[in-house]
Amino acid sequence: VTRPRRRGQESAGLAAARALDAEDPLRSLRARFALPADVIYLDGESLGAMPAATPGRVSAVTTHEWGEDLIRSWNTHDWIAAPSRLGAKIARLIGARPDEVVVADSTSVNLYKLIRAVMAVRGRKGVVVAEAGDFPTDAYVAAGALSQAAGWRLDLRPRAEIAEAIRPGVDLLVLSHVHYKTAARHDLVAVTRKAHEAGAIALWDLSHSAGAIALDLDGANADLAVGCGYKYLNGGPGAPAFLFVAERWREKLSSPINGWMGHAAPFAFAQDYAPADGAMRFLCGTPPILSMAALEVGVDQFDGVEVNAAEQKSQRLADYLIFDVEARCAGLGLQLITPRRPAERGCHVSFTHPDAWPVMQALIERGVIGDMRAPDVLRFGLPALYVSFEDLWRAVGVLGDVLRTGAWNAPRFHARRRVT
Amino acid sequence: VTRPRRRGQESAGLAAARALDAEDPLRSLRARFALPADVIYLDGESLGAMPAATPGRVSAVTTHEWGEDLIRSWNTHDWIAAPSRLGAKIARLIGARPDEVVVADSTSVNLYKLIRAVMAVRGRKGVVVAEAGDFPTDAYVAAGALSQAAGWRLDLRPRAEIAEAIRPGVDLLVLSHVHYKTAARHDLVAVTRKAHEAGAIALWDLSHSAGAIALDLDGANADLAVGCGYKYLNGGPGAPAFLFVAERWREKLSSPINGWMGHAAPFAFAQDYAPADGAMRFLCGTPPILSMAALEVGVDQFDGVEVNAAEQKSQRLADYLIFDVEARCAGLGLQLITPRRPAERGCHVSFTHPDAWPVMQALIERGVIGDMRAPDVLRFGLPALYVSFEDLWRAVGVLGDVLRTGAWNAPRFHARRRVT
Repeated sequence: VTRPRRRGQESAGLAAARALDAEDPLRSLRARFALPADVIYLDGESLGAMPAATPGRVSAVTTHEWGEDLIRSWNTHDWIAAPSRLGAKIARLIGARPDEVVVADSTSVNLYKLIRAVMAVRGRKGVVVAEAGDFPTDAYVAAGALSQAAGWRLDLRPRAEIAEAIRPGVDLLVLSHVHYKTAARHDLVAVTRKAHEAGAIALWDLSHSAGAIALDLDGANADLAVGCGYKYLNGGPGAPAFLFVAERWREKLSSPINGWMGHAAPFAFAQDYAPADGAMRFLCGTPPILSMAALEVGVDQFDGVEVNAAEQKSQRLADYLIFDVEARCAGLGLQLITPRRPAERGCHVSFTHPDAWPVMQALIERGVIGDMRAPDVLRFGLPALYVSFEDLWRAVGVLGDVLRTGAWNAPRFHARRRVT
Repeated sequence: VTRPRRRGQESAGLAAARALDAEDPLRSLRARFALPADVIYLDGESLGAMPAATPGRVSAVTTHEWGEDLIRSWNTHDWIAAPSRLGAKIARLIGARPDEVVVADSTSVNLYKLIRAVMAVRGRKGVVVAEAGDFPTDAYVAAGALSQAAGWRLDLRPRAEIAEAIRPGVDLLVLSHVHYKTAARHDLVAVTRKAHEAGAIALWDLSHSAGAIALDLDGANADLAVGCGYKYLNGGPGAPAFLFVAERWREKLSSPINGWMGHAAPFAFAQDYAPADGAMRFLCGTPPILSMAALEVGVDQFDGVEVNAAEQKSQRLADYLIFDVEARCAGLGLQLITPRRPAERGCHVSFTHPDAWPVMQALIERGVIGDMRAPDVLRFGLPALYVSFEDLWRAVGVLGDVLRTGAWNAPRFHARRRVT
């Protein structure tokens, strides 16, 4: 008696998901990405999917630009302008002026450059507030930078204490806009205002926001930001990162790493360092052109797309995923740790489960790719450009099945790999 | 009467060059590179030529590894080990142990990391000696790093004074092994010994040496080094750089930029930073995998090749080029600035000419690609893996013709481009 009813429910669920997809104004964007047919990819917040145009573009850069035009390509294919050209494209996605953003190095290196730049203008001592439990590189980099100057101190606070920690005497606040585990989102506008009222500078890590959350950095009077190219910007594994320096800071801050590409005239080979204008002075070495080319294709997938529309879709996907998991996986040990209100979260959804590691391995074997964050978090990314409601409906079915049958208990799912 | 004789001389010259190529034990390596038929490429000391295998490998990394295997490739295709795997391959080329070298970031960023690491172990004050007129990023980075600590001072000396500047009280010597303009080579063994006798640490920039000059860093008791991936290592435009930390320094030095990839257990997401063992602790952010893949192909072109053999060939090419230019371009305004003795130079040859810029533009238009370094240097790179004696014979013919006819005087050759 139960099976036909269940089967009826399932086909109704699939039909409902497809109806939501049919109403999705961004549904055609999925065709811009090359995703394997046997995979439901819910890990774009870790490594974004590959745009279909990427292999062709990267192939042109190798075979034609490097292989045939060789050194001339710095001019003829304008490799030299890639950091500022990509910066300007990312600027549109985060509400910045084109020349406030450059692409360079990694998020870690960019964090370091901006933290040290603030230390230099604030003087011999100071206090930096950061969030305990945030993505660790932020606190690692901050602690390392501060340890180089005796008078500087890191005030590492749990999330609940961040607001009270922002008070006069604080020089710099380093904060991820969206939390890498829970997806909890800080109010960038309000926290920036609070920092300014306390006399502090705010440095935002937008790794889980750029291309996911509609941002207006200039409207928020933001100071500084960094972010990642390989998540929602679809730039490929280890894609170069970006940094934002507000116009009012551009002539006041200097990079601690004075590489030749940050020089006002790199090819004059002058003996003394003279920083370039604006954010360009935060460039260091020669940019990795192949990876830059792939990042440019990734960012170009936002052509004709407003981040606001992408965010709205991702939030609908998140609502749907939470609802569907709680309905179809009830009593199976999952606990939502992502905020329920769209304005308070980013574009991924996380649940804890005591056996998160083997559960995720079992999901991946069945083609549902999310990721696990130690010790117990199952994390599912919902990039608007290529995730559908039907993807989620199918993924939740697999999740429920894996949990209900105990399939994750097989020994092969318990082996640890180097990257988790 | 003169023309037949000249034509006879020319065909004799071509035959002689071809005879030298026929005796070259490395002549078959050229087939490993994709060079255009209408180009004589003498700029590998700026951007190495593309290996024929690169497009296929990069295409596999995009289409297959990223596009199909997605996030799983960090494990299944061992992206995570790329920095140490490539480091070990480069280690063989510079006479280091496999785990003394990692690939990361740019040369500028690596210089900064190692200079700050030395500052941290040497204490609150110190002196760094560097060479005036060396590739500027080295002095830029050193000056910037030292400016962050009141007690540290940069002693920037002309080349002739470097030896006397290395004396007790000096903490660190930062020096390019091979000069980017003149190709003048320091005696790495002797200078390292002198630095140690004075109580100083030596940090070598091997950008123009790795893959060009036979090096034995461990035999020389070297301390620290950095180098470039896109010159003689054929890694492609802006390829990631490498750094070397001698085993005896590995537990004593720490990176100033504590990014998550330098953590002993990056995926534990621990709150506190614990550096990885050895050179791995100098990693920072996520490595740019596409550019890393191209660099690995570049380094793999040395499979079965001893750098010593490559250096010997490049030195013969240099002797030939100097001889041929002085014979066939006599009285045309060229002045050799590269040492005549092979042991005292790297693998490029440079001449000054008062109109170096338009002369080089005219050469490039005729398919002879070298480069110009401000204000007056014509620079020709001689990587052993793909340059032939016939290339040089033909290039010198074009050079003589351009100078003799004044072809470089055409207005189009005087326009400046962004990258010179």
